Amino acid sequence: MKRIAVMTSGGDAPGMNAAIRAVVRYASTKGIEVYGIMRGYAGLIDDEFVPLTFKDVGGIMEKGGTILRTARCEEFKVESGRKKGLQNLEKHGIEGLVVIGGDGSLTGAAVLSQLFDFPTVGVPASIDNDINGTDMCIGVDTCLNTVMDAIQKLKDTASSHERAFIVEVMGRNSGYIALISGIVTGSEAVIIPEIPVDYQAVADKLLMGRKRGKINSIVVVAEGAASAYTVARYLEYKIGYETRITILGHIQRGGSPTSFDRLLASRLGTDAVQSLIDGEYGVMSGLQGNKIVRTPFEEVLRERKRLDLSLYELANVLS
Amino acid sequence: MKRIAVMTSGGDAPGMNAAIRAVVRYASTKGIEVYGIMRGYAGLIDDEFVPLTFKDVGGIMEKGGTILRTARCEEFKVESGRKKGLQNLEKHGIEGLVVIGGDGSLTGAAVLSQLFDFPTVGVPASIDNDINGTDMCIGVDTCLNTVMDAIQKLKDTASSHERAFIVEVMGRNSGYIALISGIVTGSEAVIIPEIPVDYQAVADKLLMGRKRGKINSIVVVAEGAASAYTVARYLEYKIGYETRITILGHIQRGGSPTSFDRLLASRLGTDAVQSLIDGEYGVMSGLQGNKIVRTPFEEVLRERKRLDLSLYELANVLS
Amino acid sequence: MKRIAVMTSGGDAPGMNAAIRAVVRYASTKGIEVYGIMRGYAGLIDDEFVPLTFKDVGGIMEKGGTILRTARCEEFKVESGRKKGLQNLEKHGIEGLVVIGGDGSLTGAAVLSQLFDFPTVGVPASIDNDINGTDMCIGVDTCLNTVMDAIQKLKDTASSHERAFIVEVMGRNSGYIALISGIVTGSEAVIIPEIPVDYQAVADKLLMGRKRGKINSIVVVAEGAASAYTVARYLEYKIGYETRITILGHIQRGGSPTSFDRLLASRLGTDAVQSLIDGEYGVMSGLQGNKIVRTPFEEVLRERKRLDLSLYELANVLS
Amino acid sequence: MKRIAVMTSGGDAPGMNAAIRAVVRYASTKGIEVYGIMRGYAGLIDDEFVPLTFKDVGGIMEKGGTILRTARCEEFKVESGRKKGLQNLEKHGIEGLVVIGGDGSLTGAAVLSQLFDFPTVGVPASIDNDINGTDMCIGVDTCLNTVMDAIQKLKDTASSHERAFIVEVMGRNSGYIALISGIVTGSEAVIIPEIPVDYQAVADKLLMGRKRGKINSIVVVAEGAASAYTVARYLEYKIGYETRITILGHIQRGGSPTSFDRLLASRLGTDAVQSLIDGEYGVMSGLQGNKIVRTPFEEVLRERKRLDLSLYELANVLS
Repeated sequence: MKRIAVMTSGGDAPGMNAAIRAVVRYASTKGIEVYGIMRGYAGLIDDEFVPLTFKDVGGIMEKGGTILRTARCEEFKVESGRKKGLQNLEKHGIEGLVVIGGDGSLTGAAVLSQLFDFPTVGVPASIDNDINGTDMCIGVDTCLNTVMDAIQKLKDTASSHERAFIVEVMGRNSGYIALISGIVTGSEAVIIPEIPVDYQAVADKLLMGRKRGKINSIVVVAEGAASAYTVARYLEYKIGYETRITILGHIQRGGSPTSFDRLLASRLGTDAVQSLIDGEYGVMSGLQGNKIVRTPFEEVLRERKRLDLSLYELANVLS
Repeated sequence: MKRIAVMTSGGDAPGMNAAIRAVVRYASTKGIEVYGIMRGYAGLIDDEFVPLTFKDVGGIMEKGGTILRTARCEEFKVESGRKKGLQNLEKHGIEGLVVIGGDGSLTGAAVLSQLFDFPTVGVPASIDNDINGTDMCIGVDTCLNTVMDAIQKLKDTASSHERAFIVEVMGRNSGYIALISGIVTGSEAVIIPEIPVDYQAVADKLLMGRKRGKINSIVVVAEGAASAYTVARYLEYKIGYETRITILGHIQRGGSPTSFDRLLASRLGTDAVQSLIDGEYGVMSGLQGNKIVRTPFEEVLRERKRLDLSLYELANVLS
Repeated sequence: MKRIAVMTSGGDAPGMNAAIRAVVRYASTKGIEVYGIMRGYAGLIDDEFVPLTFKDVGGIMEKGGTILRTARCEEFKVESGRKKGLQNLEKHGIEGLVVIGGDGSLTGAAVLSQLFDFPTVGVPASIDNDINGTDMCIGVDTCLNTVMDAIQKLKDTASSHERAFIVEVMGRNSGYIALISGIVTGSEAVIIPEIPVDYQAVADKLLMGRKRGKINSIVVVAEGAASAYTVARYLEYKIGYETRITILGHIQRGGSPTSFDRLLASRLGTDAVQSLIDGEYGVMSGLQGNKIVRTPFEEVLRERKRLDLSLYELANVLS
Repeated sequence: MKRIAVMTSGGDAPGMNAAIRAVVRYASTKGIEVYGIMRGYAGLIDDEFVPLTFKDVGGIMEKGGTILRTARCEEFKVESGRKKGLQNLEKHGIEGLVVIGGDGSLTGAAVLSQLFDFPTVGVPASIDNDINGTDMCIGVDTCLNTVMDAIQKLKDTASSHERAFIVEVMGRNSGYIALISGIVTGSEAVIIPEIPVDYQAVADKLLMGRKRGKINSIVVVAEGAASAYTVARYLEYKIGYETRITILGHIQRGGSPTSFDRLLASRLGTDAVQSLIDGEYGVMSGLQGNKIVRTPFEEVLRERKRLDLSLYELANVLS
């Protein structure tokens, strides 16, 4: 193997740069050249390939986002786009590809691997933590700390005004961020897509908290489960609670990655290259326990990772 | 002087607790007892007074919000409410009052001082930084750092997606937060209430940035100047920019205070008590240069502090 | 089971409070009373027991350190001390004990369990991450982020002066903190107790880095492997490098716990109580993969957890 | 004026990059070219000049340290070195120079201005805050927040172990950092070069704190006033206190600059260029109140800025 390529795709996640760095540097020490493909599948099709050396990736580990950028790409969903991409890989003499991203990105990687038999390995990066075959995706830990810090700040002002806050966090199909950030901030209630919303139960939880003497209340809502406004309106009309709404938005994707995300990304990026060297394609490198484990794309993509619902109980019991 | 009281009122601001601590501890060393009044003017009227000792305020300096809480209070705007408040002060033998808060709070303090001749001293705390007689209000510096950190996180993801972000920050009548956070994050444009909005100029700024090769653009909007949605719609229809919106909301009020705010609050809280001891009433303690200076309420409240518009030019020139 | 006790012992670790909170709150919902024992085994012997209610542990999760404090205790190493401790447990009607701490603390817990047959469950908390039966100990993640942030700051100034820095971090017998923080900061070299020090190799690494154009160099040393001063002297005399030394010290133990540590502590504290309810004693609750698993004390204490040396290679390859 | 140069010199301080950015960008908009001189006076003599464009300084504001680096330089203290520097300035057609740094750097700037009549303007950057003519130097605010955060972490562990900590901070001749960080962390005692050390008073302060029920004690020592070890030994032998020592070291110089430092640096860098344009040489741009004011070098360098000793009293009264 003499030359491989690496790209990031889909929503960006903190730690992607650490994964890129690991891919480039580990390949370098193995005598393999690396090209970066800009803007994910869009750059693959539009032929935006840039050589990346050991030195090029110095100092990027600590940066949020991705130096290779990312973009949506409809064209790769059709035959013609895919062929163009493949031709570009061949044109540049690329013998293996590392795709860093979430669900959609890995689906693209599986296409390259399964339909075109191109040696492709995946690295899971997505703040939703909804990918099978890995305990954690790159970016989740940083995102959780960002959300936790934001909610902690809201609690200061919530306590001062004796108010309830509704905090809407990312998660269209997954309640992971909402659930874990609810637990680690001691929030009163968590609303997630995996569990039918019971507004009355939320209201009861807040009332009970107040009875116990709590002077602030936080409800964390995953965007895919309900709108913060709907929750706020219910609480106001049903139990007369004045609430404030915060929609954290894209700050959840940013920030210098945590130690956990940098380590995870470094290990997964390295293993992805080793997997290509080993001739083990069509797999994703993931973390299971303290070990790095490779899982075939079919298994990874068969279904979304299920949320551990015992954590939902934990959130309820401890707050 | 044997007994004084302290309260926080209006919107909470980080550093209020440091000011409370300074009032209580400095008074203690001077042999003066201190009562805290809960929930601002509401607690003054409802007779919520609690004794505060040197030890009670241990460990509060680092906390956001205010341990004395705060609330809106319509009742203090009318004669009957004010009289009730005054009676409570007399009932508890209070000989002087320190009011920590913004514009509205200091107006209340001026009423007590001017109409009822009650010895009252003000301490400016407001994230808007719109109060005359002080270079900086307590809470502004912490708020600016919170906004800066949030925008910095947005830049990570904005660069990865080559997107423009519209960030709406606090400031109904004042553009201070928007303007300074625009400067310190190198944002492309700042929209503030003090200056008529020129959407076309904003669009031009973004286009110029892109021409120069910038891959992200940030527009900071003070909530009192325009809605982030309006700005976003303009940019989309006029120049075809895809934008994302973030409304930072109440996290701007929270967080452990910065060194600057703790120092400022410690100095102002101490001086407010000394001012009561000196028999100098009806004034606000403020920071001017490196000095603590007392300014009569009339002067403080005559008009809102003007924004230094040379800073607006600075924002334009440097980004 | 009607009443249990909880204590923290040994070196403090961020997240201990989250574990205490989980123990108290989960027990409460199961109708079990909880006593906190102050200052670890010292308080057990000196009879410092305080009742802890659901409300008492509100707002402690975000705090570093431990509200139950901790202390060294020689007396518990001898028969007489242990008997006194046991008598106190009986006096207060305690039917089960949760011990939160590291190696030494769990050894004490094993004594209570094995010699006296007292129902005891352990929760691993130690910034060294050297305890068998769990992937991670409470406190490790926070510590790693603190060290990472500190080294990142050193890199700023190191680059400005083109200097090498030697950073000494905690770890008497374990190189975990040094190794991981070396990886996640891209440090040039890591010196740990698990691997014989090869000063010449360190010097070569720095020289190679400089040849490549790096303008700063960081060497991370675990305190148990070598003194930062020894390393500095070698580099100065052998290759003429001017170095600066930083000994991070106890800031590594402090700080508000990360999301990871709060979640881990919440899960382990809850499971420890459930383990007592289940009648499963003499075990430690640990994290393995995404699951909580109980391991008998004998197995936990048989030997220290081994460092995964493939991570050492990773550190070398990527920097 | 067609071409100017900018350099950083002496100890690095967070915010230097923001000042460089402001110099380059403001000059650009005025049609003036800018050269950066690497490594301060060393690069001036060794002819290390690099052109800096508007775009070159994009994204540097948020970085600690200085992209122009800095170095000690003995050669500029003698005639021959100074002449070489001057020749290089002339060779590159430089018509004005902005020097960003502390005491020593500004002395060098004064030499260029006074002895050689070269148009030179200074910008104060030094974490010691000991320069006349400005309320604050660039870097001080960031440094104070770094020290504050570190001490806050120490308090967590200090409370858990009921210990006293001695924290040694930067400040050879100036106690500013020690004093302010002592105030904003509520430390028990502060030892600074400006005031003769009274060890017994420190011991008394700690004993009084303990009597009041405090479970931790922090003593902040400026490196120029005493060694942390000396303080620790005194406390141990005289009052039997077990203490722990932390020497914060160079992390105090690092870190992404705070909002305050970025704003200050942006304003001062801009004004320095304007001062050259105005033909006002031999001055330093400084902050006085909310205004930018220029002060002649003679006045700036006549003596070190005096510490406001009323702040020392404040530290004593509030803790």
